[in-house]
Amino acid sequence: MNTLTQSAAWQALLNHRQDFNRTSLRQLFAQDTQRFQRFSLQAGPLFLDYSRNHLMSETLDLLTQLAQQAGLPDMIDAMFSGEPINSTEHRAVLHTALRDPYSAPIRVHGQDVTPLIEAVLERMESFVHQVRSGEWRGFTGLPITDVVNIGIGGSDLGPASVIAALPGDCTGPRVHFVSNVDGAQLTYTLRHLNPAQTLFIIASKTFTTQETLLNAHSARAWFMQTAGDASFVAQHFVALSTNETEVKRFGIDPRHMFEFWDWVGGRYSLWSAIGLSIALGIGMEKFRELLAGASIMDEHFRSAPLAQNMPVVMGLIGVWYINFFGAQTHAILPYDQGLERFVAHIQQVSMESTGKSVTLKGESVDYATGAVVWGGAGTNGQHAYYQLLHQGTTLIPADFIIPLQSRAPLGTHHQLLMANVLAQGEALMRGKTADEARQELLAQGLTEPDITALLPHKVFPGNRPSNTLTMSSLTPYTLGALLALYEHRTFVQGVVWNINTFDQWGVELGKQLARLIEPELASGKLSGTHDASTAGLISRILDSQDPHH
Amino acid sequence: MNTLTQSAAWQALLNHRQDFNRTSLRQLFAQDTQRFQRFSLQAGPLFLDYSRNHLMSETLDLLTQLAQQAGLPDMIDAMFSGEPINSTEHRAVLHTALRDPYSAPIRVHGQDVTPLIEAVLERMESFVHQVRSGEWRGFTGLPITDVVNIGIGGSDLGPASVIAALPGDCTGPRVHFVSNVDGAQLTYTLRHLNPAQTLFIIASKTFTTQETLLNAHSARAWFMQTAGDASFVAQHFVALSTNETEVKRFGIDPRHMFEFWDWVGGRYSLWSAIGLSIALGIGMEKFRELLAGASIMDEHFRSAPLAQNMPVVMGLIGVWYINFFGAQTHAILPYDQGLERFVAHIQQVSMESTGKSVTLKGESVDYATGAVVWGGAGTNGQHAYYQLLHQGTTLIPADFIIPLQSRAPLGTHHQLLMANVLAQGEALMRGKTADEARQELLAQGLTEPDITALLPHKVFPGNRPSNTLTMSSLTPYTLGALLALYEHRTFVQGVVWNINTFDQWGVELGKQLARLIEPELASGKLSGTHDASTAGLISRILDSQDPHH
Repeated sequence: MNTLTQSAAWQALLNHRQDFNRTSLRQLFAQDTQRFQRFSLQAGPLFLDYSRNHLMSETLDLLTQLAQQAGLPDMIDAMFSGEPINSTEHRAVLHTALRDPYSAPIRVHGQDVTPLIEAVLERMESFVHQVRSGEWRGFTGLPITDVVNIGIGGSDLGPASVIAALPGDCTGPRVHFVSNVDGAQLTYTLRHLNPAQTLFIIASKTFTTQETLLNAHSARAWFMQTAGDASFVAQHFVALSTNETEVKRFGIDPRHMFEFWDWVGGRYSLWSAIGLSIALGIGMEKFRELLAGASIMDEHFRSAPLAQNMPVVMGLIGVWYINFFGAQTHAILPYDQGLERFVAHIQQVSMESTGKSVTLKGESVDYATGAVVWGGAGTNGQHAYYQLLHQGTTLIPADFIIPLQSRAPLGTHHQLLMANVLAQGEALMRGKTADEARQELLAQGLTEPDITALLPHKVFPGNRPSNTLTMSSLTPYTLGALLALYEHRTFVQGVVWNINTFDQWGVELGKQLARLIEPELASGKLSGTHDASTAGLISRILDSQDPHH
Repeated sequence: MNTLTQSAAWQALLNHRQDFNRTSLRQLFAQDTQRFQRFSLQAGPLFLDYSRNHLMSETLDLLTQLAQQAGLPDMIDAMFSGEPINSTEHRAVLHTALRDPYSAPIRVHGQDVTPLIEAVLERMESFVHQVRSGEWRGFTGLPITDVVNIGIGGSDLGPASVIAALPGDCTGPRVHFVSNVDGAQLTYTLRHLNPAQTLFIIASKTFTTQETLLNAHSARAWFMQTAGDASFVAQHFVALSTNETEVKRFGIDPRHMFEFWDWVGGRYSLWSAIGLSIALGIGMEKFRELLAGASIMDEHFRSAPLAQNMPVVMGLIGVWYINFFGAQTHAILPYDQGLERFVAHIQQVSMESTGKSVTLKGESVDYATGAVVWGGAGTNGQHAYYQLLHQGTTLIPADFIIPLQSRAPLGTHHQLLMANVLAQGEALMRGKTADEARQELLAQGLTEPDITALLPHKVFPGNRPSNTLTMSSLTPYTLGALLALYEHRTFVQGVVWNINTFDQWGVELGKQLARLIEPELASGKLSGTHDASTAGLISRILDSQDPHH
């Protein structure tokens, strides 16, 4: 039997929720001049203002009681110390170890994993140096100018989001990412590249991921058209994997296979050898800064009291909106063009982790779990979907992310960017009353009938919550902290909901059914075990391929 | 008083909703072998399978009654005939006229607008020919190799999504898009461009959009660093605008200003002169194919009976999930890498149009309106957020979009892509029962205790709805139809909800507050009228700029 919704903390929160029907964010700010100081906190290089939320001190007390009741402090310790908290896969969860392999031994099944991590970091360092310095040569003797990372999901989004976020730090070869099995992505990526100067990174833990392997083989065929000799493959293909047999079979020299381990989940793997494309782009020193930024957040997460713990506070606020306000989504709104892909990465981290319906023990939950994470770069969104944030009927909690200083300063651009993000949070919170709107329309000289007709459309209900995260500027170090913050925020929610944050069984059925459909498409024969919709759609595909059709 | 939720059709739907607590999609397919034929339809080049939804014939009857009751047929006529249905702005809504200016006069305030449309199309044609042929020269006498479209919102997303969707048709100069006021976007876009061969398109209806004008001025400064002489600006900057005075002041020759009109909403403007960047990229002939594809969908929307009308059916299914199943989101999942930006464009079209809380007459609604539209290209999503679609706790209606044939065919890539999208729809619909999961685990040789522990995690509830849209391949023509489909789907929902689909007052408050904050940031002085959060954040920005800090 599931007891979360019957628990004391949950019931107290349900009661407390009613208090917010009688107050507004405007009123909460009016009542407490210390609200900003009270509801903001620093963690490493990040500052969080969470004062624009539907909460009071009591809310935070009750939410941290909920976390306590869920055993969050113990679960945090269990994760950091390498216990197999990914229980359905019997695995430890140690992406945190990747970021700090130097301070203390961390044992998995009795073996200290830190020397393994250090060894791979050193091999990466040496390889990255060779490629970036031009020492590493392609088959015609020319240095590498372009790196193509072929991977999907965690082997793509994490590295791709970091590279996109740090254009000013990308001093090495150009880094491209190919993930989709849609051949157009590979074709258009390779169109302008020179095989003699291109290095492919094949990123697949098992080296059997269907999309990745098909793209890898097509890339190899493209390369061979020019290179001719299969022995050149070793100079142009490296692997991020654990499957040495398959890697060898592909033609990759096992010395150019960079390893990671079963205690590194795909969506948490950019910190491992999967980060090789990052290190090639920004250099090993800055890759280590990225790790260090994450590590400082790890340290904060592990040691700060729950109520002053940034990932905990953010995770609990998310739970508060999802379970007590019915929110089904969460918007991430960075005011930095480079963080557009960051949203996609966090979408994966969050939705793949918390999109679960059964508890650790396998009981069905009777409460909502993960939300749809979405968003994009401001100010673009202001001219697109913000209309719905301001005047729609649905509560959408939002995180604004602000680098206080630009690393590519240009005239007054950054000042205008900052004015906009502050204004958006302010507007969502305070709104505009009918009285205020009326005064403006009067000042514009509108007639009374026109005002009557227009007024309701010009009112903003306000009272819409947001967090604001700031950092001095967006660097490898601050980005590392930001990424780790959202990883831990996700874990906090998983613990409260009593689900396994670290498995992903839900991706299997689609793969399984695709394996049945593919031979049908290849042979042109329906097997007949499908529903009418699937069968009808298969027929349409087969018809479209029929040259006599 | 608001009567939608008290209306007969709404109440009947509320009752009918209960029927779906006693059945499942699996059962509906089992009961009716004609379900695929019954619930699928063709419109121009698009085919829609909507059989995998929670609906029966009765549902469709009741939903079309709801649409009838809302006056949808009259509203469709009113839109096409140029009535001022954007009532809060007293404007006609005639993006449909842009796609078919040749068949019949369309009058706005008594004036036939079709000659205006034709004239601009002809001017675009001549200009596009000059640039693409190399006849148009930059200030050093070289032809144009790169076009930079500077606009935001509708002046950016629509054209950007079309260019991204049609890489194989992009035979002209490279087309880049700069929208964000974050200076990094402009800086990194211009980094590798040659001012002597770059053409800037400044897209702003009023020529006062703050982000766009700041980017335009910075682009002009970048250009002038090389060009030196302001008279060269005329050869490198053109405007898409209605404000000739401001365009001239900027240094653009009014002969290079391409006009559009107040009956073209920003998010519906890619069909107007705002599409110039598209036409430069793919050529005028293919731009006209894009218009023709949209026009065929317009014709269908205008003439097909409600129950066989693709935008109507899709719009009503959306209403069904939002208002009767509590869905807050809608996922768009194209299986074509080029349609990644398409999702962002439709997100804007939908959310800016339906994110409203008052009716046309200004009454507050007591029902939900617009959903959060989100998504991205499959198969990528399968390795990211699909976990939540399959095993999460929230209903997320989804549209799969499938070009049956690839325009960049590569080995078996497209076959695998197709197998995947069909499998995903099938998996969402049928799920996997505990019995089925148990058989699999037994076949894998797991012990009974292991099965007991793992089984609940391997179960897929299924019964999750989706639409599937197919087209022969993704061309300007089919893309035009697809874009128009989603535009009209959005309008259908707006009519049912009795809101103004075509205004966007909700974007104003943020702009207004930003105008107050900007001088504070510039002067370093807080005015003191802000809430503590806004004031605190402004102080942090000012502190970060203080060199003595």
